[in-house]
Amino acid sequence: MKQFLKLYTTTFLGLFLLTSTPLFSMSNGYGLWLDYTKIKDKVVLEGYRSQLQGIYLEEGGATLKVIGEELTMGLGTLLDTNLKFNALGGDGNMLIVSKYMNLPKNLTEKMEVDDLKKEGYIIKNVDMEGGSHVVITARDDIGLLYGTFHFLRLLQMHKPLKNLEIVESPKVDIRMLNHWDNLDRTIERGYSGFSIWNWQTLPDYIDQRYIDYARANASVGINGTAVTSVNANALILTPHYLEKVKALADVFRPYGLKVYLTARFSAPIEIGGLKTADPLDAKVIQWWKNKADEIYSIIPDFGGFLVKANSEGQPGPQNYGRTHLDGANLLADALAPHNGVVMWRAFVYSEHDPTDRAKQAYNEFVPDDGKYRENVLIQVKNGPIDFQPREPFHPMFGAMPNTPLMMEFQITKEYLGFATHLVYLPKLFEEVLKSDTYRKGKGSLVAKVIDGSLNHKKLTGMAGVSNIGTDFNWTGHPFGQADWYGFGRLAWNPYMDSKDIADEWLRCTFTNDEHFVGPVKKMMMESREAVVNYMDPLGLHHIFDTGHHYGPGPWVDNLSRPEWNPVYYHKADSLGIGFDRTKTGSDALFQYAPEVQKMFTDLETCPEEYLLWFHHVPWDYRLKNGRTLWDGLGIKYQKGVDQVREMIATWEQMKPYVDDLRYKQVTMLLNIQLKEAKWWRDACMLYFQTFSKMDFPKEMEAPEHALEYYRSLQFPYAPGIRPSWN
Amino acid sequence: MKQFLKLYTTTFLGLFLLTSTPLFSMSNGYGLWLDYTKIKDKVVLEGYRSQLQGIYLEEGGATLKVIGEELTMGLGTLLDTNLKFNALGGDGNMLIVSKYMNLPKNLTEKMEVDDLKKEGYIIKNVDMEGGSHVVITARDDIGLLYGTFHFLRLLQMHKPLKNLEIVESPKVDIRMLNHWDNLDRTIERGYSGFSIWNWQTLPDYIDQRYIDYARANASVGINGTAVTSVNANALILTPHYLEKVKALADVFRPYGLKVYLTARFSAPIEIGGLKTADPLDAKVIQWWKNKADEIYSIIPDFGGFLVKANSEGQPGPQNYGRTHLDGANLLADALAPHNGVVMWRAFVYSEHDPTDRAKQAYNEFVPDDGKYRENVLIQVKNGPIDFQPREPFHPMFGAMPNTPLMMEFQITKEYLGFATHLVYLPKLFEEVLKSDTYRKGKGSLVAKVIDGSLNHKKLTGMAGVSNIGTDFNWTGHPFGQADWYGFGRLAWNPYMDSKDIADEWLRCTFTNDEHFVGPVKKMMMESREAVVNYMDPLGLHHIFDTGHHYGPGPWVDNLSRPEWNPVYYHKADSLGIGFDRTKTGSDALFQYAPEVQKMFTDLETCPEEYLLWFHHVPWDYRLKNGRTLWDGLGIKYQKGVDQVREMIATWEQMKPYVDDLRYKQVTMLLNIQLKEAKWWRDACMLYFQTFSKMDFPKEMEAPEHALEYYRSLQFPYAPGIRPSWN
Repeated sequence: MKQFLKLYTTTFLGLFLLTSTPLFSMSNGYGLWLDYTKIKDKVVLEGYRSQLQGIYLEEGGATLKVIGEELTMGLGTLLDTNLKFNALGGDGNMLIVSKYMNLPKNLTEKMEVDDLKKEGYIIKNVDMEGGSHVVITARDDIGLLYGTFHFLRLLQMHKPLKNLEIVESPKVDIRMLNHWDNLDRTIERGYSGFSIWNWQTLPDYIDQRYIDYARANASVGINGTAVTSVNANALILTPHYLEKVKALADVFRPYGLKVYLTARFSAPIEIGGLKTADPLDAKVIQWWKNKADEIYSIIPDFGGFLVKANSEGQPGPQNYGRTHLDGANLLADALAPHNGVVMWRAFVYSEHDPTDRAKQAYNEFVPDDGKYRENVLIQVKNGPIDFQPREPFHPMFGAMPNTPLMMEFQITKEYLGFATHLVYLPKLFEEVLKSDTYRKGKGSLVAKVIDGSLNHKKLTGMAGVSNIGTDFNWTGHPFGQADWYGFGRLAWNPYMDSKDIADEWLRCTFTNDEHFVGPVKKMMMESREAVVNYMDPLGLHHIFDTGHHYGPGPWVDNLSRPEWNPVYYHKADSLGIGFDRTKTGSDALFQYAPEVQKMFTDLETCPEEYLLWFHHVPWDYRLKNGRTLWDGLGIKYQKGVDQVREMIATWEQMKPYVDDLRYKQVTMLLNIQLKEAKWWRDACMLYFQTFSKMDFPKEMEAPEHALEYYRSLQFPYAPGIRPSWN
Repeated sequence: MKQFLKLYTTTFLGLFLLTSTPLFSMSNGYGLWLDYTKIKDKVVLEGYRSQLQGIYLEEGGATLKVIGEELTMGLGTLLDTNLKFNALGGDGNMLIVSKYMNLPKNLTEKMEVDDLKKEGYIIKNVDMEGGSHVVITARDDIGLLYGTFHFLRLLQMHKPLKNLEIVESPKVDIRMLNHWDNLDRTIERGYSGFSIWNWQTLPDYIDQRYIDYARANASVGINGTAVTSVNANALILTPHYLEKVKALADVFRPYGLKVYLTARFSAPIEIGGLKTADPLDAKVIQWWKNKADEIYSIIPDFGGFLVKANSEGQPGPQNYGRTHLDGANLLADALAPHNGVVMWRAFVYSEHDPTDRAKQAYNEFVPDDGKYRENVLIQVKNGPIDFQPREPFHPMFGAMPNTPLMMEFQITKEYLGFATHLVYLPKLFEEVLKSDTYRKGKGSLVAKVIDGSLNHKKLTGMAGVSNIGTDFNWTGHPFGQADWYGFGRLAWNPYMDSKDIADEWLRCTFTNDEHFVGPVKKMMMESREAVVNYMDPLGLHHIFDTGHHYGPGPWVDNLSRPEWNPVYYHKADSLGIGFDRTKTGSDALFQYAPEVQKMFTDLETCPEEYLLWFHHVPWDYRLKNGRTLWDGLGIKYQKGVDQVREMIATWEQMKPYVDDLRYKQVTMLLNIQLKEAKWWRDACMLYFQTFSKMDFPKEMEAPEHALEYYRSLQFPYAPGIRPSWN
């Protein structure tokens, strides 16, 4: 205990040294995937101990200090030993951590560094006089930190330390979290408590969480964070708040984590005292230049602005008859002298535009391809609507060869069961990244758009809308941590297999016991299809209850904007169900490459999981299995419920392998998931039955209540809703 | 580590068994004053081990199980040993825990139980054949649990276990927390995060916090909790929410903690579909009867209703031309068949009433003394205004001999520096409780009103407005835990010395090292006078910035209701400052007993700490020390700042005795306190100088900014404000 605590504490920049007081605290998940534990397998342990007899760590600044602390804690705990930091050249097998430029010649001549890029690292065995060493090297300090985390992960996963030949460089430049956190600490679409940013006590009080947040992000290669909501508040750009942001930036810096802010387009009026925010107005241009100068004088490595403009009521350049291009370039020019970037969100749609909402972003942005400044990225949601359990990839991917497009994933589960459903999102992310846009022929994967390789982009990025809150375990659901972890891993390398990511996460978070890893990984991998089945099967989408998006609301038809109503999306009638996006309908398919258009248009080739996304299909249409669409719908809903039952059965078998707190937590949450899966099935099928007039398929269990019951349910305080929408 | 965890886990009703995974978690204060640690003093440890060789614990239900778990964990950790539970009559010195009725005769004949009341307990040494035992006995299970916590506290404090003759019974019946928690998890006047009640996931998800909350409350004898805000939402009384409340009640029950709810007076309209909430309307009467029946069918031991009516915009009986008496008795009649109680708050004041706000509650309630049902308590704030750093006791105490009056203290620091100032509140509570009302002659202490002894009351109570939130350490400031602890101890025994309480809390929470306990106890004891000095010296009150009450706002004069404006309270003008509440002014003094009136009226006898509360005094008035009032004011403000500096100096010396996380946290917080103490001094003195036109006394440091700077400060997202007031 003492030993552990002593080691543990060195992480925190030496600020926080603990006594040996026992903790009245649970294995509460706070430690995430960095919950180093002593290796129990004696063979593995002894192997590591003999390979790691000392550490050489290059001297240096704050990041090097962080590396030393992480190694002291990580190795100290994993190996249950107190490793010494030594000079080079002594006896024994060493871990050597040093930038390439500082390594002695007899080491560098054994290393191949041509493929090593900024932030990248090499982990390699090198035999030299005195011992057989493991070398972690990089071009920069952050590369060393990332390599250190990778190295510790090898140990957490009991990987052999022989024949190591790891060369890793990030494939994406900007790998960042988007916090939809408001200044009052509510979080839009937050389900794991409230914002970890305590603006009231900043800058004077540094919450331990800020440090651990930076460390966790660095461990998966996340290098940026926009700490405020895209529905932005201009106050964050005032000196009072910038001083607080600076305090965060100072904490994050050693971990390679840059701070970004959301810029409210009307800020020049609201906090600048100007009469307009017109992007072509000289005073407005000057105001943003001055504001950028001011921010960089306070935070020299400030990342840049994230902007939601002219979307869902947010102000933007169109208020002045200007375009998104005008707006983005305005901010880009202000940031350019400081090497800052603008991430301009493509999530725009207008109640004044009768076009299929799925088409509007493409229409708005694609014509201006190539006209954006070099430091502008267009941030595009993975699909054309809004983070549904399943969407086809966004048609903008691949359609703007001359503009950097960033991916925007949602890690928080707005439409996937909040923080109470176990749904492993990297499976969804992988599906999107591996989708083929065909924009430069077969193999033009979305991943290649994101990493820039499809069109040789100079600036690339991936953003994930954070699922982090004040809950002890950060993400509410213990398995929500895997989504944060997996997002980071995929931002580093968009070609990773989500199954491998699950494997890593499980071993680092829980145990290496195969009796646990195997079944639970299977459960995770199947969980995403389960949620699609019990919420939105066969291409259905956006049939959530409105506002809070908690539970089903396919019947909702009374909202002021047509495209906010679920009936807009499913279009169920006496003939059938689904949104015709072919030429006979909205022709949204026209926005895809011809090969993709063709595949989705033809009912023979359109994958059934996208059927109702692109087609309005008769109730008695025959699916590939010969059953009617109506039966198939019911069978899918039932399947989703059954899959949750299987998850529960799997989890019950895991009791011997997992601590009881998390065992119990996950058990309670899976029971909520089952209850809500049934709710979805019953509510949706009863409602759609009012159109199909057909009996439920025999495979489907009878609903527990009548339709009116489901329609009557109200949840005025469901979490995550913008207060002004309440 | 293993040992500790194994022991630890048994607390949680056996639900949560932990593995030996090290915790990536800090000594984060979650454990409160129950953070049992192994006793390091060998003499003490060996003494305890020889005294405690085994445990006999009576068999029984849920509460007995909780006792067993607490003893296993507490003794296991304190003594670093695994004590066996044995039958009676064996060899060795035992701890015997059993209700009196179940003790064998040879034990009962050695016990004196005449003074033992409901919930009380005895801890006593008894020698018998076989050994020298410590016996904990009680009339009921809860008494045994309270006795167990007391016993463990003796060990935490290294007290000898010889010649024990402890007989403790609570002096107050209802000892409860009031949570001002909203259904959206914001907390009105909450500064340590958000509500720990996660209504979204209740009843299916039982957060570990609910269990630990109940346990912490039981450890200090708190036996009730109103989980919802007094600015009530009627939805809490609907079946959807009552099911969630039931889940909490089920968790709390073994710990002797009853659930209460706030009843919105207009609920019959809002959720009952009635046209009126007139307390004399037959349908309304029936509705509340039915509602009470419904609640008790779900929660058989439901405590009752807490009501804020016709105050600050809340609905109430006066909306229908009825009285508080009518309203309270309406609810009392509905609850009476189930033995529920109504706590009707006296905190009422009206913008239509030009009377001094300090007088209104008394005027409203005192005339109806004796007319309230037997199960009604009138809940009275400690002072006549609103939880100021210092107020004279409320004139209602002692003035309603025929009606039970409950005390309402505020544990959350709305007016005392939020969760960032170290201010030890039991000192304030003690001052109030030991105030003499003189209603039945000298010695008619407020404490005697509260424990019912002054007028032989059958029903007594004390409420504390909770300072608990989702922060890891529950209360934000590590020293905020002492206020929760101390409230509980004073509710159990309103005659306790706050210094003794600080001593207990420090030893149980930090260490028994006298180098720490002595100086820190002194710092705590002086902290309340410090905050009075730097915020509201010499009887000033309610000069806080409005709405959020963060920082000074003595200049505010533009609010719609006169009594919401700070200028209403300080009445500074060219002649002087202070609120004349003598006969020449509002004559609020008339509401006190003649002896008290006399003391406060006469400038010779009025204590200077109440000077400006009761008198408008010229700027050049001579204080007892010969200085002018103006100089005295500046000297007091300066003194407050200096006192915080002393606290910082004291705390710096404590580094060797406290874990570094809390050391650093308190250091950061004390620095905020110093910054804000200066802000108060400078803002208030600069503002008052505009009236006095006098130079600052030479003792006072020069202000850091001009008055306009302080007036310009705005804090739109200061925490704890009701969203609708924002």
